[in-house]
Amino acid sequence: MIKAGIAGATGYVGLELTRLLSAHPGVSLIRLSSRSGNDQPIGDVYSSLTGCGLPSVSPIDAEELSKNCDVVFTALPHAASAELVGELHSRGAAVIDMSADFRYDDEAVYSEWYGVTHPCPELMKEAVYGLPELYREKIARSRIIGNPGCYTTCSILALAPLVKERLIDPSTLIIDAKSGVSGAGRSLSADKLLAELSGNCKAYSVAKHRHTSEIEQELSKLYGSKIVLSFTPHLLPVSRGIIATSYASLFNGSSAKELLDCLSDFYANEPFVTVFKEDALPELKHAVGTNRFCVGLIVDQRTNRAVVVSVLDNLIKGAAGQAIQNMNIVFGLDETEGLNYLPWTI
Amino acid sequence: MIKAGIAGATGYVGLELTRLLSAHPGVSLIRLSSRSGNDQPIGDVYSSLTGCGLPSVSPIDAEELSKNCDVVFTALPHAASAELVGELHSRGAAVIDMSADFRYDDEAVYSEWYGVTHPCPELMKEAVYGLPELYREKIARSRIIGNPGCYTTCSILALAPLVKERLIDPSTLIIDAKSGVSGAGRSLSADKLLAELSGNCKAYSVAKHRHTSEIEQELSKLYGSKIVLSFTPHLLPVSRGIIATSYASLFNGSSAKELLDCLSDFYANEPFVTVFKEDALPELKHAVGTNRFCVGLIVDQRTNRAVVVSVLDNLIKGAAGQAIQNMNIVFGLDETEGLNYLPWTI
Amino acid sequence: MIKAGIAGATGYVGLELTRLLSAHPGVSLIRLSSRSGNDQPIGDVYSSLTGCGLPSVSPIDAEELSKNCDVVFTALPHAASAELVGELHSRGAAVIDMSADFRYDDEAVYSEWYGVTHPCPELMKEAVYGLPELYREKIARSRIIGNPGCYTTCSILALAPLVKERLIDPSTLIIDAKSGVSGAGRSLSADKLLAELSGNCKAYSVAKHRHTSEIEQELSKLYGSKIVLSFTPHLLPVSRGIIATSYASLFNGSSAKELLDCLSDFYANEPFVTVFKEDALPELKHAVGTNRFCVGLIVDQRTNRAVVVSVLDNLIKGAAGQAIQNMNIVFGLDETEGLNYLPWTI
Amino acid sequence: MIKAGIAGATGYVGLELTRLLSAHPGVSLIRLSSRSGNDQPIGDVYSSLTGCGLPSVSPIDAEELSKNCDVVFTALPHAASAELVGELHSRGAAVIDMSADFRYDDEAVYSEWYGVTHPCPELMKEAVYGLPELYREKIARSRIIGNPGCYTTCSILALAPLVKERLIDPSTLIIDAKSGVSGAGRSLSADKLLAELSGNCKAYSVAKHRHTSEIEQELSKLYGSKIVLSFTPHLLPVSRGIIATSYASLFNGSSAKELLDCLSDFYANEPFVTVFKEDALPELKHAVGTNRFCVGLIVDQRTNRAVVVSVLDNLIKGAAGQAIQNMNIVFGLDETEGLNYLPWTI
Repeated sequence: MIKAGIAGATGYVGLELTRLLSAHPGVSLIRLSSRSGNDQPIGDVYSSLTGCGLPSVSPIDAEELSKNCDVVFTALPHAASAELVGELHSRGAAVIDMSADFRYDDEAVYSEWYGVTHPCPELMKEAVYGLPELYREKIARSRIIGNPGCYTTCSILALAPLVKERLIDPSTLIIDAKSGVSGAGRSLSADKLLAELSGNCKAYSVAKHRHTSEIEQELSKLYGSKIVLSFTPHLLPVSRGIIATSYASLFNGSSAKELLDCLSDFYANEPFVTVFKEDALPELKHAVGTNRFCVGLIVDQRTNRAVVVSVLDNLIKGAAGQAIQNMNIVFGLDETEGLNYLPWTI
Repeated sequence: MIKAGIAGATGYVGLELTRLLSAHPGVSLIRLSSRSGNDQPIGDVYSSLTGCGLPSVSPIDAEELSKNCDVVFTALPHAASAELVGELHSRGAAVIDMSADFRYDDEAVYSEWYGVTHPCPELMKEAVYGLPELYREKIARSRIIGNPGCYTTCSILALAPLVKERLIDPSTLIIDAKSGVSGAGRSLSADKLLAELSGNCKAYSVAKHRHTSEIEQELSKLYGSKIVLSFTPHLLPVSRGIIATSYASLFNGSSAKELLDCLSDFYANEPFVTVFKEDALPELKHAVGTNRFCVGLIVDQRTNRAVVVSVLDNLIKGAAGQAIQNMNIVFGLDETEGLNYLPWTI
Repeated sequence: MIKAGIAGATGYVGLELTRLLSAHPGVSLIRLSSRSGNDQPIGDVYSSLTGCGLPSVSPIDAEELSKNCDVVFTALPHAASAELVGELHSRGAAVIDMSADFRYDDEAVYSEWYGVTHPCPELMKEAVYGLPELYREKIARSRIIGNPGCYTTCSILALAPLVKERLIDPSTLIIDAKSGVSGAGRSLSADKLLAELSGNCKAYSVAKHRHTSEIEQELSKLYGSKIVLSFTPHLLPVSRGIIATSYASLFNGSSAKELLDCLSDFYANEPFVTVFKEDALPELKHAVGTNRFCVGLIVDQRTNRAVVVSVLDNLIKGAAGQAIQNMNIVFGLDETEGLNYLPWTI
Repeated sequence: MIKAGIAGATGYVGLELTRLLSAHPGVSLIRLSSRSGNDQPIGDVYSSLTGCGLPSVSPIDAEELSKNCDVVFTALPHAASAELVGELHSRGAAVIDMSADFRYDDEAVYSEWYGVTHPCPELMKEAVYGLPELYREKIARSRIIGNPGCYTTCSILALAPLVKERLIDPSTLIIDAKSGVSGAGRSLSADKLLAELSGNCKAYSVAKHRHTSEIEQELSKLYGSKIVLSFTPHLLPVSRGIIATSYASLFNGSSAKELLDCLSDFYANEPFVTVFKEDALPELKHAVGTNRFCVGLIVDQRTNRAVVVSVLDNLIKGAAGQAIQNMNIVFGLDETEGLNYLPWTI
């Protein structure tokens, strides 16, 4: 059994890690810790977890975590996360970091978009970007995984094969994404209250959302030159899930079949990717509750554009599930272990 | 008092017409009729209306409606609506038609997108497209109003001034729209059940939604040449409202201020249009419950694109409210009468 | 035109007063004020109100309010509200108070349930309990109205005639009530976030909710001796509305018809009360968006109990709408003016 | 591996059985069948299951199911289910029946409440009521399990120990239950559409819901004499979960501690029951996504009543999860296998 700990267990990502790890047959979840931890029952933080037999929430102690855990999932705000990762790494723990701190190749890009100096830039080189569909082999050999963002995963996986094979024109790329509110975390604000968010929908961080830079980094590498794209996130009045609708002009007037074949070939052996057949598109709930990423597309011949629709659960394939997938890879488990769930259709 | 009747009172648009007209100080709502009408209480159709003192639901009788009503709102499926409009018009009633039948300049475009032959093409010429912000004067003199579609109104009003003034490149236009489920009407299907739609979101009719043709018709006239654009509707797990996020490249690298000034000038005297200030964007709930149309935008200098966000209530400014606004114009009332509501924020 | 002001305009009740008063044909809403007011636009507090042409939010100034307003609606927390009411009243304004401060006959009961000493007990005698169906004549002559609580109105109106006519045994009375979250106000807490409340439902304040005392006060007076009852509030994952299911044993084995006749007789001339026919029951949405109170019942002969179901909109008939109804009475307007809306069925 | 099949896989209970069984480590789900089955992919019925690698939906064939499956879950309407159960049982399959057909001791009670003659009354004697907390030993030896109803389980488990130990007066028992709409199944009706149910809540089948008879049967046996009680179901605007608030007068003025001790003792070794501590109550979401049953209570000394709040997921502990728990018992597996999930808090 892999002994796992969570640092930052009381946020939504920490909660989801707790939920999934506690049902993982190969994992013993031995430590829940949080910056606000004082050994209270987790049921004091999420009353739904009352009586579920989970560890109490301890303060974060890097030494103790490193000594007792084979792997630590760090889910703190950026910069704070990197500091802890450094301490854990130097003491020998494998670390899967949920923050943005180890997602970037270039420290300058990180600093520009996050507005902080990276606390331990030397570790950035040791880290691997934790997107198994692109970096499985490197992940298997790494001890620091920078787990990708939620919007990022949903966008990159939808577009990577098409960009790599130069079927779409990246200069025309527009990603219109819609996310459940759990992506915004548990911090309190009136616009997230049910009374105000229920029945609402809004765009936010238009032309400046931080995940833009992460999407551009990965797509640019695949394309071979710098891509700049439009990314617009929207808040949906639902708890979970991201649906991204991406638009791009076709380079060669490819058919829907050609584009879908490109996706199917690229993801032929991927356990968590479903490429939809022609004329079918995934819906948000196809992914909710699962580690799936689903993608489908329509070619609009009137406008010579591809419209690509992709979905995932922001807390699972967009965060905790992908982190566990990465853990499975690092520890040599079957990649799907603890992650084989059908969607929450109802 | 204007004597008003509704033909097709039992659908969602008919229900909203009933709700708004019954509170309109200048209107006496004397007739609710429906193809399934047999003089049953409207409370048998919508139990919430039990005991509200409304007329019962009669069968549709063009002669009776024409004789007793100054204005008839027709809310039947396309083609069926046109037939009734013809009968009502020939008998002298002013008609505001909620279907697509009188929205098109060109019968061929209508036939192509709706897949039917128009039952009375000769009347198409007499009809005026009921978008007051573009055709107020013509509406005032007309007896057949083709009330615009919901997505259509939300899209055209957002883009008309920018297209007309050639600030954005229409060949790059992409409209990503999200609508509450009332837009899909009351017909029963599993995907509209709360158990399945709650927590869901999906794209549908991608690259082939009928409202595309209506948007293109109006924007093309303003631009002076044929525009072909991408329009993608999405279903939101909410009852009401449309939010459209539109993308277009800037012709001349205009600033957000220049674009907003263009919108503000165009809509300077419009009672139902709110143009947002720089850096602010409207949200779905800014419009829900009202006849407002709200628009704001961001200029993304990285990509040289404008991102325009517009919202309205699909049942009000997108249907019943706009119809009443048209009625007010036709009958010389204050245009805002019966429509001056603040949004349902909570 | 009645000049109206609101003190406490930024809470949910204040917001609803603003919404309804701004559409009231006999009212000029001239002042929005709040303890946090500093002349900011109301759109800074509720962005949905951006561009709606409302007054900005001023600080609360009793002298200024009294001088300029014919009526002031006070919507502050208990005790704080009474202090302001005293200042406004002494300066001559009619006051309709939304807090609990002027709802009680007995200062001791107020102190026991609210845990504070009343700031101006001498004014309690001058105030009238603002439930028009019971106290219309007194309200017409009063200058201080203690507007009833939301659960209270929904419970009292359902049971008052049956208790008064001794058709049900008050010692067996159990009220199981379910409310939308707007009843809990705008204060921030994690359990009111959409991510956590959506899909949830819970009982709270069981056997100790303050409204219990208000219900008992009014029903006891009608019955002629002290009634003690069980009241259990529940939080629904919706924004608005209360549905109360009340249970009581029948004194004389009355039929449903007899009970319904009792209700119908009692409310024969009430503009906002709908008594449902036998075998029909009101639903939450029958009331949402309106000042209606709807009631229906079933007699369970197996258990000799009546099951009474009643609904209202907690922000309208349960708060702002009832306050405006009271205002209409005080100022001699038609009691339904500004309140004649059909429900928000969709 | 236990080979399992489902007859009636396309309803909501069948869907939930599919979801849970496909992740059960000891089960091979080899057959999905349905009366509408014609070997179509299950993704044609629930598009969310597209690409999930499940069996297609075959027609129901008792012989084929019996030959290939160790256990068949029958989820058909009452009466239809019993006929199939008879065929499966005579061919040797273990059967867990989700309908009401094998829940009753007395054929007459079944006929009275369900309005049909039982198709195979002789099998009723062979069947065991599948509530493990009451009948675990019998279940282990049975080949026909009558899986309890959802409201039933939530009500019986809350009250059984208190009734058995005569701490509450059953003649005063009132159960006010609230359920998510999945309990009403997938049949289409306008009142279940999101546009109409969202924001709504209603009581239904008051004083005549069929589950009343099942609750009375079980509590009466524990009490030793006939109990007649009030049961009122309500529809919540959520997909899943039941919360029941039960009221009863105390026989001996017991304290909350005494009542809670009674519950804790009764359920001391139950893996899926959580008894809450004094002053704490479970909420709907404590159970959603799990096979848990949670119960807590308050004693109201003012009225000498206990208020008991209980929750479960209607599709899991109220249906599919309980069925799998029964299967685990019948086949000698660890009772929690395939059912150890934390709640879907978000």
